Amino acid sequence: MIYSSDYNRLALLGIDVRGVSLFDTTLRDGEQAPGIALSMDDKVRMASALGDLGVDVIEAGFAASGDTEKEIIKKIAGMGIPSAVCSLARSVKKDIDAVIDCDLGYVHTFLATSDIHLEYKLKMTREEVKARAVDAIEYARSHGLRVQFSCEDATRTDLNFLKEMHIAVQDAGAETINVPDTVGVIYPTAMTYLITELRKVTKVPMAVHCHNDMGLAVANSLAAVAAGAKQVHVCVNGLGERTGNAALEEVALGLYANFGIEAVDLSKIGNTSRLISRITGYPIAYNKPIVGRNAFAHESGIHVHGVLNNAATYEAFKPELVGVDRHIVLGKHSGAHSVKDRLNALKVKFPDERMPELLARIKELAVGGKEIDDAELMVVADHLLWMRGEEDAVKLEEFAVFTGKGVTATATVTVTVDGERRTSSNTGIGPVDASIKAIRCAVNDKITLEEYKLNAITGGSDSLCEVTVVIKGAYDCSRLSVGKAVGLDIVATSVDATMEAINRDYIRGRR
Amino acid sequence: MIYSSDYNRLALLGIDVRGVSLFDTTLRDGEQAPGIALSMDDKVRMASALGDLGVDVIEAGFAASGDTEKEIIKKIAGMGIPSAVCSLARSVKKDIDAVIDCDLGYVHTFLATSDIHLEYKLKMTREEVKARAVDAIEYARSHGLRVQFSCEDATRTDLNFLKEMHIAVQDAGAETINVPDTVGVIYPTAMTYLITELRKVTKVPMAVHCHNDMGLAVANSLAAVAAGAKQVHVCVNGLGERTGNAALEEVALGLYANFGIEAVDLSKIGNTSRLISRITGYPIAYNKPIVGRNAFAHESGIHVHGVLNNAATYEAFKPELVGVDRHIVLGKHSGAHSVKDRLNALKVKFPDERMPELLARIKELAVGGKEIDDAELMVVADHLLWMRGEEDAVKLEEFAVFTGKGVTATATVTVTVDGERRTSSNTGIGPVDASIKAIRCAVNDKITLEEYKLNAITGGSDSLCEVTVVIKGAYDCSRLSVGKAVGLDIVATSVDATMEAINRDYIRGRR
Repeated sequence: MIYSSDYNRLALLGIDVRGVSLFDTTLRDGEQAPGIALSMDDKVRMASALGDLGVDVIEAGFAASGDTEKEIIKKIAGMGIPSAVCSLARSVKKDIDAVIDCDLGYVHTFLATSDIHLEYKLKMTREEVKARAVDAIEYARSHGLRVQFSCEDATRTDLNFLKEMHIAVQDAGAETINVPDTVGVIYPTAMTYLITELRKVTKVPMAVHCHNDMGLAVANSLAAVAAGAKQVHVCVNGLGERTGNAALEEVALGLYANFGIEAVDLSKIGNTSRLISRITGYPIAYNKPIVGRNAFAHESGIHVHGVLNNAATYEAFKPELVGVDRHIVLGKHSGAHSVKDRLNALKVKFPDERMPELLARIKELAVGGKEIDDAELMVVADHLLWMRGEEDAVKLEEFAVFTGKGVTATATVTVTVDGERRTSSNTGIGPVDASIKAIRCAVNDKITLEEYKLNAITGGSDSLCEVTVVIKGAYDCSRLSVGKAVGLDIVATSVDATMEAINRDYIRGRR
Repeated sequence: MIYSSDYNRLALLGIDVRGVSLFDTTLRDGEQAPGIALSMDDKVRMASALGDLGVDVIEAGFAASGDTEKEIIKKIAGMGIPSAVCSLARSVKKDIDAVIDCDLGYVHTFLATSDIHLEYKLKMTREEVKARAVDAIEYARSHGLRVQFSCEDATRTDLNFLKEMHIAVQDAGAETINVPDTVGVIYPTAMTYLITELRKVTKVPMAVHCHNDMGLAVANSLAAVAAGAKQVHVCVNGLGERTGNAALEEVALGLYANFGIEAVDLSKIGNTSRLISRITGYPIAYNKPIVGRNAFAHESGIHVHGVLNNAATYEAFKPELVGVDRHIVLGKHSGAHSVKDRLNALKVKFPDERMPELLARIKELAVGGKEIDDAELMVVADHLLWMRGEEDAVKLEEFAVFTGKGVTATATVTVTVDGERRTSSNTGIGPVDASIKAIRCAVNDKITLEEYKLNAITGGSDSLCEVTVVIKGAYDCSRLSVGKAVGLDIVATSVDATMEAINRDYIRGRR
């Protein structure tokens, strides 16, 4: 399933990575990403998906941040999720009390240990920091909580002090000690060195929490695992403060491809990633590893040709491993292989001898960066085959719409269908809605509007807009028909797109 | 400038990385990303920016792919860019001829060497591959071209054969040999091993070309450099086939932070990244390292407090190093520190004693994932201070608009300004444009529309839309005023947003 490099096996020979698990902090560090704010319902759905995925621990939030947060955490703790549920807490009594209020059995408590944080944020000495950390852990333990402790900014903390801290907190009863790369600055071989050094004094399992400021979060996490860390903090889609935490999906695949560990149910990664993108409103970058739209998309002739022969030529693993799909994309770099493959999949018959014409038209459309999707390919192929010089079956003769304040938007249209004039009027929620409804009444009352899409406009109120309309039932009731139009007026452009969709269906229906 | 980890210095001690440079392939591998197609003008602007940035080599395209491509490459070659300009070529005579046609002095030629590519794509033996590569290099050299050669899929190629290839191609005259991780599968320590082994037989400088399928492209590139590779293939914003190539900005920062090498002018990274995002139409992910919107954005109370004291507490380096800005973002996790800081920057006076009210309102708005931008903060602060129970100064009494086919969109509005009725009509490119113009005429003909933004709509023609209008000159000519409205009808919602912007300006003007 993985077409890995033999060099990886050689380089990682003899490394023991048994028992490595994932600690998911999408609901806590992930939510701290600018602009993300989750409701109880959001967090419940996310926690349920993470439990299904099989992460070891879910950090559900930061209990001390307010009563709403406490209610949400309490709710998640009571859901019977197979993962352990914990809350973040600063090393102070009131934060730990807030965690206890949520009926949790597990707390993740932290205190910064780097000189820069001590001086500019905490204004405390090293001895004070150590004492406060120990107090907090002992307090949590005395209330029966399991404790994971983090020395915040560990990767910029003096090694001797960091070791002292590890000894003190494990003696105080921390069952796991996390090593956060809070600012995302460590380098993988430095992480190997640091974990190796810390293992000399740390008897409890260690976790790592890597941020991606330098693009190395995943590499640092895997380096820590190879050096003996037993848990990796992750966020789905690489969410988290600033440029995010190590991405769950990349760490999971890295563990599987390089160490043979299946830390979560890999096949659920695609769905989980999409769910969390939808809920958080954070889009997944096209080129995001594992789950991006392009991860298994191929456009250029050489690559498509290779992939159609054997996907392993240009893919690191099969998309079904992580529950996502492969796409052959049509664009400027496409060859005939790709176009035929798409047309076959869409069950569109197109004569081989006219393929060069179709290919030329696709390349023409693609300049300017357009990706040719299935709807567009059907439109282009249709145009070439059926629409040359052919007259529209349905013509818009007249069209008028009015709207205002205290007025119901009303449209009147006159169309000719095969020469027969038909006039119809209708009302709607606004002028676009009224116009489309009036056209549907005039042409064929079985027409349904399946989708209406208006691209975002920024600029003036007279900027170009692009409207896509998908209808059913103009000529043939079982088939979708797509129309696209570009123009300056939203209403007129929506009408044009609707008329195009109707005519396309008529022409195909009659061929 | 860099607040790095001391552990990096320890781990990388004694490594010699002098003379490392960047080979930019944004115009070639970057353009192969699905949906990207660049015109001559696009490529010329990009090449010029890359030259300014200071990359060593620009791979301008794939000359053999057509006459248009050749023209573009020829144009770039003649621009006098300080970087070397080259073209990709397969190891066949006609591809190299195409490069010669472009008046280039440098070719990047390649041939796959892994068994999987030999069997499923090339259908050639190892001996045939070696002979063809040597022939191609000798042909290019005989025409005076400098040659960089790539064994495609090197990281899945048998080590002995790969060494044989390196020996053969350097003997044939390649001046640089590139090691591509074509499918993005190698692991950093494996890359170290591979480059170390290859150095035993490779006398010419080596480059690496890493893909990001497993999220390790940057780590692998840096590992190769630490092991002795002298050039890194990169794409701006991590563009490229599938999940892209190693991101230029991450590699450049990694080289600087860990090895002290300034391979390009770092301060131009932000502008270059934005330019290439605009031209390619590929948005930059919010959480993209170095150049993402969130790379220097802070929302949570703890982090903002730290950053306002000393940015080094939660930032790996200063944003000005790479020509981008820091943002303090307001949202669910904000504390009073952040809000005061923003209000001060916006020169809005807000009484301290009412801060809890403002904070509560911000948190309320933020649930559902809304990020509170400056415009929104001004609106909320205004509302709290001035708008409680206050009546609108300008009221919309009547409003009607009509449009259609063969009809110029025309709107008529009646407003009362401080009780005085004024009626005005105007035409526009569509009903939205006509309506906004009519309102401006009726209220104050000095009003200018600075921005109109309509969020994308997907669903039916009666879906909710959100309109933002920014105007100037309603009451005070020097100040921007923002109005936002949400509704089902695009025209009515645009009118509502315009009226809100006008009233906001009146109320603030009169306070």
